[in-house]
Amino acid sequence: MVPRYSRPQMDAIWSPAERFRIWFEIEALAAEAMAQLGTIPDDAARVIRAKGSPRAAAIDAAAVEAIDAIERVTRHDVIAFLTYMADGIGPEARFMHQGMTSSDVLDTALAVQMTRAADLIIADLDALLAALKARAMEHKFTPTIGRSHGIHAEPTTFGLKLAGHYAEFARDRARMMAARAEIATCAISGPVGTQASVDPRVEAHVAAALGLSVEPHSTQVIPRDRHAAFFAALAITASGIERLATEVRHLQRSEVREAEEFFHPGQKGSSSMPHKRNPVLSENITGLARLVRGYVVPALENVTLWHERDISHSSVERVIAPDATTALDFALNRLTGMMEKLVIYPERMRQNMESLGGVVHSQKVLLALTQAGMSREGAYAAVQRAAMATWTTLGEAGARDFRAHLLEDPEVAALMDGAALDAAMDPARDFVSVDAIFARVFGP
Amino acid sequence: MVPRYSRPQMDAIWSPAERFRIWFEIEALAAEAMAQLGTIPDDAARVIRAKGSPRAAAIDAAAVEAIDAIERVTRHDVIAFLTYMADGIGPEARFMHQGMTSSDVLDTALAVQMTRAADLIIADLDALLAALKARAMEHKFTPTIGRSHGIHAEPTTFGLKLAGHYAEFARDRARMMAARAEIATCAISGPVGTQASVDPRVEAHVAAALGLSVEPHSTQVIPRDRHAAFFAALAITASGIERLATEVRHLQRSEVREAEEFFHPGQKGSSSMPHKRNPVLSENITGLARLVRGYVVPALENVTLWHERDISHSSVERVIAPDATTALDFALNRLTGMMEKLVIYPERMRQNMESLGGVVHSQKVLLALTQAGMSREGAYAAVQRAAMATWTTLGEAGARDFRAHLLEDPEVAALMDGAALDAAMDPARDFVSVDAIFARVFGP
Amino acid sequence: MVPRYSRPQMDAIWSPAERFRIWFEIEALAAEAMAQLGTIPDDAARVIRAKGSPRAAAIDAAAVEAIDAIERVTRHDVIAFLTYMADGIGPEARFMHQGMTSSDVLDTALAVQMTRAADLIIADLDALLAALKARAMEHKFTPTIGRSHGIHAEPTTFGLKLAGHYAEFARDRARMMAARAEIATCAISGPVGTQASVDPRVEAHVAAALGLSVEPHSTQVIPRDRHAAFFAALAITASGIERLATEVRHLQRSEVREAEEFFHPGQKGSSSMPHKRNPVLSENITGLARLVRGYVVPALENVTLWHERDISHSSVERVIAPDATTALDFALNRLTGMMEKLVIYPERMRQNMESLGGVVHSQKVLLALTQAGMSREGAYAAVQRAAMATWTTLGEAGARDFRAHLLEDPEVAALMDGAALDAAMDPARDFVSVDAIFARVFGP
Amino acid sequence: MVPRYSRPQMDAIWSPAERFRIWFEIEALAAEAMAQLGTIPDDAARVIRAKGSPRAAAIDAAAVEAIDAIERVTRHDVIAFLTYMADGIGPEARFMHQGMTSSDVLDTALAVQMTRAADLIIADLDALLAALKARAMEHKFTPTIGRSHGIHAEPTTFGLKLAGHYAEFARDRARMMAARAEIATCAISGPVGTQASVDPRVEAHVAAALGLSVEPHSTQVIPRDRHAAFFAALAITASGIERLATEVRHLQRSEVREAEEFFHPGQKGSSSMPHKRNPVLSENITGLARLVRGYVVPALENVTLWHERDISHSSVERVIAPDATTALDFALNRLTGMMEKLVIYPERMRQNMESLGGVVHSQKVLLALTQAGMSREGAYAAVQRAAMATWTTLGEAGARDFRAHLLEDPEVAALMDGAALDAAMDPARDFVSVDAIFARVFGP
Repeated sequence: MVPRYSRPQMDAIWSPAERFRIWFEIEALAAEAMAQLGTIPDDAARVIRAKGSPRAAAIDAAAVEAIDAIERVTRHDVIAFLTYMADGIGPEARFMHQGMTSSDVLDTALAVQMTRAADLIIADLDALLAALKARAMEHKFTPTIGRSHGIHAEPTTFGLKLAGHYAEFARDRARMMAARAEIATCAISGPVGTQASVDPRVEAHVAAALGLSVEPHSTQVIPRDRHAAFFAALAITASGIERLATEVRHLQRSEVREAEEFFHPGQKGSSSMPHKRNPVLSENITGLARLVRGYVVPALENVTLWHERDISHSSVERVIAPDATTALDFALNRLTGMMEKLVIYPERMRQNMESLGGVVHSQKVLLALTQAGMSREGAYAAVQRAAMATWTTLGEAGARDFRAHLLEDPEVAALMDGAALDAAMDPARDFVSVDAIFARVFGP
Repeated sequence: MVPRYSRPQMDAIWSPAERFRIWFEIEALAAEAMAQLGTIPDDAARVIRAKGSPRAAAIDAAAVEAIDAIERVTRHDVIAFLTYMADGIGPEARFMHQGMTSSDVLDTALAVQMTRAADLIIADLDALLAALKARAMEHKFTPTIGRSHGIHAEPTTFGLKLAGHYAEFARDRARMMAARAEIATCAISGPVGTQASVDPRVEAHVAAALGLSVEPHSTQVIPRDRHAAFFAALAITASGIERLATEVRHLQRSEVREAEEFFHPGQKGSSSMPHKRNPVLSENITGLARLVRGYVVPALENVTLWHERDISHSSVERVIAPDATTALDFALNRLTGMMEKLVIYPERMRQNMESLGGVVHSQKVLLALTQAGMSREGAYAAVQRAAMATWTTLGEAGARDFRAHLLEDPEVAALMDGAALDAAMDPARDFVSVDAIFARVFGP
Repeated sequence: MVPRYSRPQMDAIWSPAERFRIWFEIEALAAEAMAQLGTIPDDAARVIRAKGSPRAAAIDAAAVEAIDAIERVTRHDVIAFLTYMADGIGPEARFMHQGMTSSDVLDTALAVQMTRAADLIIADLDALLAALKARAMEHKFTPTIGRSHGIHAEPTTFGLKLAGHYAEFARDRARMMAARAEIATCAISGPVGTQASVDPRVEAHVAAALGLSVEPHSTQVIPRDRHAAFFAALAITASGIERLATEVRHLQRSEVREAEEFFHPGQKGSSSMPHKRNPVLSENITGLARLVRGYVVPALENVTLWHERDISHSSVERVIAPDATTALDFALNRLTGMMEKLVIYPERMRQNMESLGGVVHSQKVLLALTQAGMSREGAYAAVQRAAMATWTTLGEAGARDFRAHLLEDPEVAALMDGAALDAAMDPARDFVSVDAIFARVFGP
Repeated sequence: MVPRYSRPQMDAIWSPAERFRIWFEIEALAAEAMAQLGTIPDDAARVIRAKGSPRAAAIDAAAVEAIDAIERVTRHDVIAFLTYMADGIGPEARFMHQGMTSSDVLDTALAVQMTRAADLIIADLDALLAALKARAMEHKFTPTIGRSHGIHAEPTTFGLKLAGHYAEFARDRARMMAARAEIATCAISGPVGTQASVDPRVEAHVAAALGLSVEPHSTQVIPRDRHAAFFAALAITASGIERLATEVRHLQRSEVREAEEFFHPGQKGSSSMPHKRNPVLSENITGLARLVRGYVVPALENVTLWHERDISHSSVERVIAPDATTALDFALNRLTGMMEKLVIYPERMRQNMESLGGVVHSQKVLLALTQAGMSREGAYAAVQRAAMATWTTLGEAGARDFRAHLLEDPEVAALMDGAALDAAMDPARDFVSVDAIFARVFGP
């Protein structure tokens, strides 16, 4: 991922040096297990650990380049790494990687990296959930118009809006937990996964030490349906980001102006138009969401490897594993900061809500009329008549509001007077269930 | 989905008539709950049920057309349906749909349909798992060559291959269960989801009666991240189908001939070449897997609806909800039948395994040499020399096998004689962990 | 595609009966070419045409079922069809399909169907272009605010907006023409495409008669990169539909109200809220655009067939070829009608444009100040100050507009007086290039 | 893109420093055009060029960091760049960017970069086409079995196989040329694209100087359908790479062994199994093809920007524009080298072709029998009988071949004797059209 959309915490997970360090840890742990089983000499495991650990810890850019140089001859990355390590460990290095195959190292290391990346993302989600909850509580009863199809529907509260996003990100968090479990498996199963040359107890030891579960059946590789499920969870979470970003973009548009991204001192919105304050963070993460979604397609195609394994998944994962997790981590962080600082305009919300002459209360009148005995179709027609009359004269001089149009309608007037209408349209009725919904979302 | 790839059980779930019947059930249940709460008269609920049930049950093609005709005027499907039902129910119909909005009906009905579709797919997976387990047990110790990169690697068993697919489909089953739970929610929350005009207890009643959970927060619509997760689970399962289908296609290719789809009496493989017997079922479901994967993209885009809802998701779901579930149901069934009848050629497996002059045992010799004191690099080089010499003369007159080449190598011969080599390459060692892996996959 | 999103013209192209009729035409044309070449007897070709033509023309639902019944035995669709036709043609039928393979028939028939579907879509685009041009001319100088990031930027005209969509659909038309050419090829090349058993002149004859070009190299099948390019063109066109639909959805939202989909007499916008008039057509085609985009993914995966062909593409294309073209045809038609009837509110456009106190002219002041000698950074800061002061007091009692704030700024006032400001902000300057742009888009 | 899959030529195009240099060139050219028109002083344009050129040329990592530091305050990349340049240019810098908006710079610069990237890719395709043509000519008449469904069908030549891939990449080249033309446009149209503040002649001047065409209608941004078409062309080309890579993977598999990637001295195929030689280059580019395909999805979603522009496309393009072009450039180069060095085994091709006892000639016998008067159905049944009898006894002791089984069949024997069969199955007939197909693909 380009530096612009990367955070150092995530970069660290995916750095080449860190990758090699995890590889060594896997090899050292496996050697220790083999020594315990008597497959290799005790001394060998001890030397591998004693001499290998500092060598692995010291891997820097120059060491990475040295390993890459070996790879240019062997054309095999794990062999290059083993050769580099053997150089520092000495003869006992021949007991490293005994009975193992490179996938054992590569796939288990990828599991470690993806698990750590998942942990970062879950922490990101926790921070976002906290921010959303705080703003939702703050605006639990801030009235604002609810919109379906972009058209004013009925009043809701700004807190309720945020609660809905909170609930979605809470589901995303659960999905990320499940996705983390999917890929947190360890395979040390040797060629074509038969564990003919490596005892299953080695695998169990490495898995336990790394906090992974044992892959019940690896066909040399950890099966890629697990990874596909992981990337799908990232993509769904990214889509939740886009939904909230889109809400903010709508609320900030010039005709709405109900909320606004924080505009920093010194910030400039446009190179040409000094008046501009644009929801650029929201738009930015909307694009990042598209990116993360796009990575699902190759991840799904990766599932179908040939026979016990082919390596076509590798080039895909070298790119999308860091890119998808890094972009999502970045977007979640940006979104959290944005929501924490989001400037909210309750007065403007009130103005917008009242701007359509009261037609947003049409359902309440419809219900009152049917309760008063009108057929549903008749009531609907009468209320629609009054609403359309209100709507089409909005803003005109002398225009009457919805209530006035209703009272002029003989069918309505026969059943309801002004007081009855006022009772029906009482705004207090709009928020009777807010507490109940908050309790369902945030707990009692 | 085209009839060619549809099964009647799934078609029934998605038929227009069934959809309307579910709509009615939701309306009738809601009315009953409202009557209990005193929102509408008891009699109203009773009449709605009494007159509505037979009318709904009798919905046939003509009734569907009648509803569609009303829709052509109202341009609103739920209103058209309510109008049609009101015609049979009479004045009490005005108490139907009180305080509800069309999404309450549409989304809850979709949840019912998707849940039923999920149940069918889960049953399909159970049948597939049973078939795979039976064939895996049958061939638990049928030796066959394991292949990485399409190249012979080391021996495995055909049962182990199938066990890997079993394990994957078992994960898919778990994912489908989770996906089912994701979309098995009920929303009866009224305009913009505030439950201002419909009591949450109505929702709870309908949910319980339909076997759904209550949607904690619906923004008028059930949030589409749930549906995206559902389609992602379908896509991952479809990818598992493709992986197994690809295995069969590989095994059936003319040079391999280790397994073959059952060829029916009367079947013809080609219009021009009477000798053809092609893995057409496998290829067919490979294509269906691509289709099902493609539906994830629009499902993910559906998450970002505007504000409390827009209806852009609807046209997508009218197509992909039936199409994705129907194609997957069909493909799973086809795959199950195919695996049950798959013709397996153990003798050919043996021939192929032995066709490379024994080089497939190279790792065992490598390990023995390192155990005997050679460096890993030295042992690797010696074994690679012998293997390449074997490989490049394969099939030539007088060609020697891997064992012979090894014995000619002075470095090898210094450490191992023929008996030692035979012990190292003992095929019995290949399958020592098969029981353990089977126990992990199928249980003890 | 579901009937709801299908037009009869497109359905006719993809009907099973029509497919069989095209198959017959290909076989008959090939037989005639073979007769000319002396490969089969003249009489045979004549009888095939004479007896086959009426039999093909008469194919109805019952005939389709009869062919399907044969296929259930042969498990091969083309053989089933040939058997059905042979039944009506008699012994000469043995000269049908000589040296050909089923792909010759299937792929060439698909080319005919896709070409026809492309023609419909191109005609749809012509109708849409005409509608957009008419509306663009009508509103060539209707002022409206241009928006970047959803924020008021500078004035533009509604005609200019439409001209941009016109230009995009004109590009889409060109892409569809190129895509049509991609798939308008004929392959009659026999098994594995060697033309060993069928003379290339047969292919040339069939191609010419069907208005197709000859496939230079078919590997038994017409290569699927052609089809992928076709579906990509559909997807790009669909995305253009979504862009225009999104514009209309924005313009119709309650706070904007600058344009509105036509609302029919009798139409109902919501089952619960009689006041609703929603942009449901735009939302509907937004969803259809998502669908059409989703079909690109499997179309791209179809390119990689094994060796000379496998049939995995077939199940994909049986679904996406009709579905993608039908959905796009429907969406284009719906969009054209929608744009023709779109209700446009110029007065509301003017109100919105003026609602931000004049800050939308900020660039013009910035330019005037730099021309008057201020540094770009200084001018930007001054204009930004005035704009932000205007913006943050919008709607407050006694708030001053942008011009007033500028005149109060000593740095600005030192260089420009009120008259100079008025000259700089003269709205007439906004539209000086409209004619030039229209000429580029629509021609002089 | 990760360094592992990048070539320096492509990296150079996408480097931050190069991006800034292109930005400056656009600003300088625009200033020169404005000076010619009298919009800004002649001197200003001269100073901008004279002082700006060396400053731009000297942009290095430190300068990039300096610009980024300014951006951290302004939160606007183009303003940061202009500020950095102004620092070196002095007061005349205020005449830079007059009447322009940042999109003018960003989008035109992106067009320059994408055009250059396209040129590299087209050159890559030329090299690949040359390699394929050379190998196709070399093996024009090397017999090999053609396979449909992975099953032996009829003989073809290895040159014909390669010719098919050549033809596909030639189409890809044409698509890349069209895609290059799509994005090679220049927009200098100012806020919301009205060209109110910047004369269209400025745009024409910049376009001509940069070798771009003028964008007829930009809505502030160059419309993203152009970019979507570009990425679609990359994806289709990538799919062609995968098709050829898949062919090589199939040919190298152990049971086929008809071709093999070059195995370098020192290369190691597996960390555990020294005998392995794997088609790792083919598998690697198969994965890269998946990646490039995946970028189409976000590119298509980018088309729908809001109103005159939003910036959601930007984060997508900052990643996929370099990543997709870099991965494709790398994969094409790798494929070309791989095909040049591909080791081909004609003798093994012959062995495989003959391994099925002659059934691959079944169509020729079928045709001869129908020509001799048998019904198509009867001939098919007789030939199928003989082929299946051959097939099912393949490799058994005393098994007879296809010819023998045919001669034993009384129905066949009644019409054809051994000589007639030999004439029908004459292999010389298989390649009669090779010259004609080569002429169509490579020209006469």
